[in-house]
Amino acid sequence: MFTEIKTSANTAGKPRGRGRPPGPTAQGAAAKKRLYDIGVKRMARHGYEMTTLRDVAKDAGVSVGLLYRYFPSKRAVIFALYDELSADYVTTTAAMRPGTWRDRALFALRSSLDVLRPHRTTLRGLIPVLVGDPDEGVFGEQAEFSRVRVLGVFQDAVVGASDAPPRPLAEAIGRLFYLVHLAVLLWWLLDKTTSQRATDALVQLFAGILPSAAMTLRLPFVRRFVLSVDALVREALFADPVKAGA
Amino acid sequence: MFTEIKTSANTAGKPRGRGRPPGPTAQGAAAKKRLYDIGVKRMARHGYEMTTLRDVAKDAGVSVGLLYRYFPSKRAVIFALYDELSADYVTTTAAMRPGTWRDRALFALRSSLDVLRPHRTTLRGLIPVLVGDPDEGVFGEQAEFSRVRVLGVFQDAVVGASDAPPRPLAEAIGRLFYLVHLAVLLWWLLDKTTSQRATDALVQLFAGILPSAAMTLRLPFVRRFVLSVDALVREALFADPVKAGA
Repeated sequence: MFTEIKTSANTAGKPRGRGRPPGPTAQGAAAKKRLYDIGVKRMARHGYEMTTLRDVAKDAGVSVGLLYRYFPSKRAVIFALYDELSADYVTTTAAMRPGTWRDRALFALRSSLDVLRPHRTTLRGLIPVLVGDPDEGVFGEQAEFSRVRVLGVFQDAVVGASDAPPRPLAEAIGRLFYLVHLAVLLWWLLDKTTSQRATDALVQLFAGILPSAAMTLRLPFVRRFVLSVDALVREALFADPVKAGA
Repeated sequence: MFTEIKTSANTAGKPRGRGRPPGPTAQGAAAKKRLYDIGVKRMARHGYEMTTLRDVAKDAGVSVGLLYRYFPSKRAVIFALYDELSADYVTTTAAMRPGTWRDRALFALRSSLDVLRPHRTTLRGLIPVLVGDPDEGVFGEQAEFSRVRVLGVFQDAVVGASDAPPRPLAEAIGRLFYLVHLAVLLWWLLDKTTSQRATDALVQLFAGILPSAAMTLRLPFVRRFVLSVDALVREALFADPVKAGA
């Protein structure tokens, strides 16, 4: 399949073997990955709105018909991006060691920056879609699979810790940490300092104050506050209190 | 000038009176306001990227040449939007009463939601520019005038309070409140609950915990934390430590 794409460079516009589905072969996966990389690169450079599938096909030297079989829309490329990055993230955080929920949640936070670091330019170009688009953004319905996957890492970090708070609170802390991680990522994408030094410094400061902040969780009104904010997050941003809490 | 625009509807494409600058007359201002309203409306509906000055001129029934004299670029429309909304905000918060810094900063926060509420649909459509564009976004150089104007309201709220903390800390708290207000606005734009009920609930929760949070400012390490985060915000997001602190 990969060969087919290569050779079709000179016959762009004439869809070949149209009836044959891409299929889950290794070559098919490699071809899809190549088209995906080209699509993401183009969107990062020219912006999501200004990119058409025709442009991507041209960059890849394949017919629009062939590209369409892998990615029927621009959205499909964005969802593939979520899928790739969240899968990388799960792989990276699989090495999470036993410990306190603070250490584990901080590890989850820092790992997200490590995983995304090589993709910063791409993600910067895609902020408009990631943040701004109700359907294709990180809080959109279609991103739910990847969102729940990443959210799961933060929840497990807290729930599976040696000093895990009781269940409903532990899950709420995990979800709020997930939200903090999104805020840190946005800060990191906008960070104007060299090598985003200020982002690392921010995470360091946050890590420094976290033990004291965690102590306040012993106070009933702080617990109530955390649970209330969590309920609002699920309602306002995830629009799916039940599933997000599962 | 307003009449000129009206009648040029049938001669779109033929710039009339090209040599005459718009000038700061009342009619000129009214004409500019009308073109601005049409431009913002179109961007909100079709997205910033997909809007051209030609489209806006067509919607307004004026020549591109005439439109160009008021708004030489799409950016100019965005900067006019910042200017309008931040001026409205300053007018609204001019009624700020004496009191504690917490009450005054909360008033500043709630006022920003009040001022922006009628423009939510527009701003939602413009999230990609507001957040995602390094040059035209709220942290961009060009938005500095409006940004400093709004920031000033939050700083004055804290510095001019009956219980204002000493100077460098008071200013830092004002700036961090400004950042909280931006985060709340982003939450509000993404809020999926009816009438953004969850945003009001969030502000209410925040108001409820603020007195206790403020008490922790007596602890030296909390003060150090606030000052350090503030220094990072200025460096990472405003990229202008000196002016932002003026």
